[in-house]
This record gives sequence, C-alpha cells and structure tokens, in this order.
Amino acid sequence: MIERIAILGTGLLGTSVGLALRSANFPGAIIGWNRTSRHAETARSLGAIDRIADDPLAAARESQLVLLAVPIYATLDLMEQFASALNPSHLVTDVGSTKAHVTEAAGRLFNATDRAGFLPGHPMAGKERGGPELADVNLFRGTVWLFTDDPGWQRSQESAALAKSWRQWVVAMGARTLDLNAERHDELVAWVSHLPQLTATAMSAMLEDEVGEAPELKDVGGRALREMTRLGASPWSMWRDIAFTNTDAIAAALQALEQRLAHIRENLRTSELREEFEKANRFRRE
Amino acid sequence: MIERIAILGTGLLGTSVGLALRSANFPGAIIGWNRTSRHAETARSLGAIDRIADDPLAAARESQLVLLAVPIYATLDLMEQFASALNPSHLVTDVGSTKAHVTEAAGRLFNATDRAGFLPGHPMAGKERGGPELADVNLFRGTVWLFTDDPGWQRSQESAALAKSWRQWVVAMGARTLDLNAERHDELVAWVSHLPQLTATAMSAMLEDEVGEAPELKDVGGRALREMTRLGASPWSMWRDIAFTNTDAIAAALQALEQRLAHIRENLRTSELREEFEKANRFRRE
Repeated sequence: MIERIAILGTGLLGTSVGLALRSANFPGAIIGWNRTSRHAETARSLGAIDRIADDPLAAARESQLVLLAVPIYATLDLMEQFASALNPSHLVTDVGSTKAHVTEAAGRLFNATDRAGFLPGHPMAGKERGGPELADVNLFRGTVWLFTDDPGWQRSQESAALAKSWRQWVVAMGARTLDLNAERHDELVAWVSHLPQLTATAMSAMLEDEVGEAPELKDVGGRALREMTRLGASPWSMWRDIAFTNTDAIAAALQALEQRLAHIRENLRTSELREEFEKANRFRRE
Repeated sequence: MIERIAILGTGLLGTSVGLALRSANFPGAIIGWNRTSRHAETARSLGAIDRIADDPLAAARESQLVLLAVPIYATLDLMEQFASALNPSHLVTDVGSTKAHVTEAAGRLFNATDRAGFLPGHPMAGKERGGPELADVNLFRGTVWLFTDDPGWQRSQESAALAKSWRQWVVAMGARTLDLNAERHDELVAWVSHLPQLTATAMSAMLEDEVGEAPELKDVGGRALREMTRLGASPWSMWRDIAFTNTDAIAAALQALEQRLAHIRENLRTSELREEFEKANRFRRE
C-alpha cells in the first residue's frame, strides 16, 4: 500500500524506523533528510534510507507517507510549511513526545478532505543518548506506540487508507498501538516518562555536587545507582521542547513526587513507611 | 588460612557468599544457619553451605570466621550474645547496610586483645527481592565491599590475621574493598543507595495511585519507567532497619532531592533547566 516514505530527521528514532521497516520487509522506497547532512549520510550507510533528499518539502511531496522525526518545535514548523504544499494523497505522521500542540496543529492545518492527512504519533522508545549511530532495528519491539488521532477529523479516503497502513507498519516493527486523546496523552506521559527523566536528572545533578569529584564513591552505588541515574545522560536538547510544551502536567507530577518524598522523610520511623513500601510493591507485582 | 566459616543468615547475601567462596575455591568447611530452617535447606541444596547448624552460637564457636548476614537489629542482637562467648581466635564480620550502630558495638564488645575481633563490612550488592533462591555466584563481581574498620582497635594477632584473610576472600569473590569511617559510610550510602531506593519506592507508590488500576498504562513508560521503579519491589522488611539506623542522613538526602525537584519544576522554561541537565550529564560522563 505505502510505496514511498520520507523520513525527515534521521536521528535515533528516524534511523531506527528505517531499519525496522526494512527488517519488517517494507518493499517501498525510503528517502531521508536531516538538517545536519552528516547524520543523513550515517542513516544511509546503515541502510535505514535509500537516498538523501536536499530539501524536506521536496522529499515530502514525492512520498505518500511523511514521518517527521525532529524535535517538537521543528515538527510544528514543518507542519506549517507542509500544510498548503501537500494534498489529500499524503499522510504526515510524527514521533513527538508531547501531543497537545501537534494535535491542535493537525486539526487546524490538516485532516480535511481537501488536505493532507496528519496522524499524531509517539513511540514510547528511545535511549538516553541520541543520534543515528545508536539506531537499533529492535528499538520498538515490545514497546507501545501511542496515537492521538481525533475521531472528528474528516480525512480524504486516500490519507485515511495511508493512516491505516502506517498503523500496520508500526505493529510490524514490533510495537503495540494505543490511542489516547491528546490531553490525556500529555498528562500520562508526564507521569510515566517525563517525571522519571527529570527525577534522574535531578538526582544525577545533585550527586554531581555531592560526590562528583570522587569517582571511587560513584562506583559504590552499584547497579541501583546506575539505573536510577542512567537517564541523567540525556541531553537538554532532547528535553527542552518537551518541558516547554508540557509544562503544567510535568510541574504537577514533580510536585506530587516532592510531596511523596517529604511524606516518606517524615515517616522513616513510622508504619507509614511500611504502607509506602507495600503500595510500591503492588505497582511492581508481576 | 581460614578453615571454618559460619554463615549466619542464608538469605540472598549469605547464600551468595557461600556460592562465591566455593567458586573462588575456598577449601574449608562452611556451616550455615537461618532462623527459618527452610532457607538453610535451600542454601545447602544449592551448595552454598556444607551443613546446617541448629544454633547460631554453636556454629560460631566451632568456626574461625563468622559472617552475620541478617538484618541490622538481628546483627546487633547476635553481637551482644557472641561477645562473651567467643574468644580471640574468632573473627566476626557482617554485611549490614548501615554501619554506625554495628561499628559502635564492635568497638564496645569486640576488638580487644582478649576478645574476638569484629570487622564491620558492607557489600554494595543486592537485588530488589531477597531469599536464597535468588542467590548468585557472581553477585559481588565488579562491586565495592565497604569496611568501616577502626585503626584504633587492638585485635589479637589471630583475629587480625583472620581479618586480613577475609579481605582477601572478598577480593577473590570479585569485589573491590574500600575503607571508610562509619559516619562517612552512613552519609555516603544515604546518598548513593538509600536515596535511590526510597525515590523508587516513592515513585512506584505514587504511580500505583495514579495508574495502578490501568495495567496497559504502566507498559507505556517502557524501559525508563521500569528501571526507575525496579527497586519499588524491595520489601519493607529489608529496609525497616536501614531507615531506623540511618534516619538523619537519609532525611537530609531526601530533603535535598525534594529541593532539587522543586528547582527544576520552577525552571522548566528557563536556562536553569539546561544547567541541571548539563550537570547531570557530567555525573554520567564516561
């Protein structure tokens, strides 16, 4: 069904999608583009894309399925550019970590019968460092790929069929799809993704102040400390747009954790500590 | 040098020590005891101990090296019992996660030339669940085994030689030793071990309230969430004594993290967020 895909942004996610599509026997053409051309070269050398486009709009025009795999504000910029330049035979989709802004723009700029379709997506997969060198053909295997499709949108038949086909390719890459509305999405990922990231950042930054000058003391923490601070390696450049576009939900989750930590701190010697452990055990029951 | 070891407490740590000693070709006898005899049977069936003692004091008396691998208050109880019953030909050591109380008791009850020696120890190894079934011959490989030996203690020649030999067996089990004073130990582990545990407990308990009833939403978080909450499975029974015996240092670390999270929350849209990410990146630099 889909014969030509453009992957715009060949970082970790975009390049991994190319590899995973090929591994799932996607038979069509995959064109790639990246602002930094060196990263597109890497994606091509890995076999994630067939050839490199000079210009994102040209690549989008000659494809049926356009995957935006760039940070959120860059996604919004491309959406503005593409809205009037593409037509009902195109479907655009994205991989952005917050969905309120992108989904609003999708309804405003796309998803009418005389326009291109836009399917807002978010694969819950990634690594603490980015770049095509770290791309992984199995990145999406066993993960959840979220969509914030709006049942009220009127898509052309052609773009609706492309959206259905893209969902099948997502499953072929090993992910499970889950549909949420955009507001619920942003609230949920604040709890299960943005909070863990910012907690690891906070803990790592604090420990850098406490024991950063004594590398031998870092080793003392072992596996527990390594896991709890692994995400501390994530670069700000990957998180800036997320913090900006999901500020309220993230702030609410952070404040709730601050209060929970204070509750534990005030109850280190009371039976409340036992209740917190038992509740945590329930969360982790198998 | 050491010919007879008693492992008192055949849980995860005690049983793993038995397995690791055998794997490092310890040639002597290993007697085991556990309050719940079923766990001692498991340790024996795994080959971690040669035979099961009915009584911890009898097992200690007939051994040279006595390893206390029970919770901290149980360790302190056994120390009181053993102090007058053992003699300068014995060395007792432990694996407790906080060292102020045990080290104080070691100076008060042991470590005189006419008494048994006591070497306070703490392997920085473990799992989020306990029990001999989860014992692992490689549990200590690549980890740090802390000691809070006091250079002012006067040990008998015999117990001093046993302490030296035990340190060599710890290295033979794959660990690196590091000496700290007890106060510094407890402060350090509050930052690099107790804080990560209680943060995982707090996050898990909070998420149980938020999304516990919707298992499909738990999966959304993926690897990041799994890692940040893995320690949420740790049972309160393993942590009660730690919270009781290191309350002040733990409370200070928790409060510092609360403040750090609040700082991030108040700066989700300022350049301070970038500084926190960059500091966290330095902590995780390779």
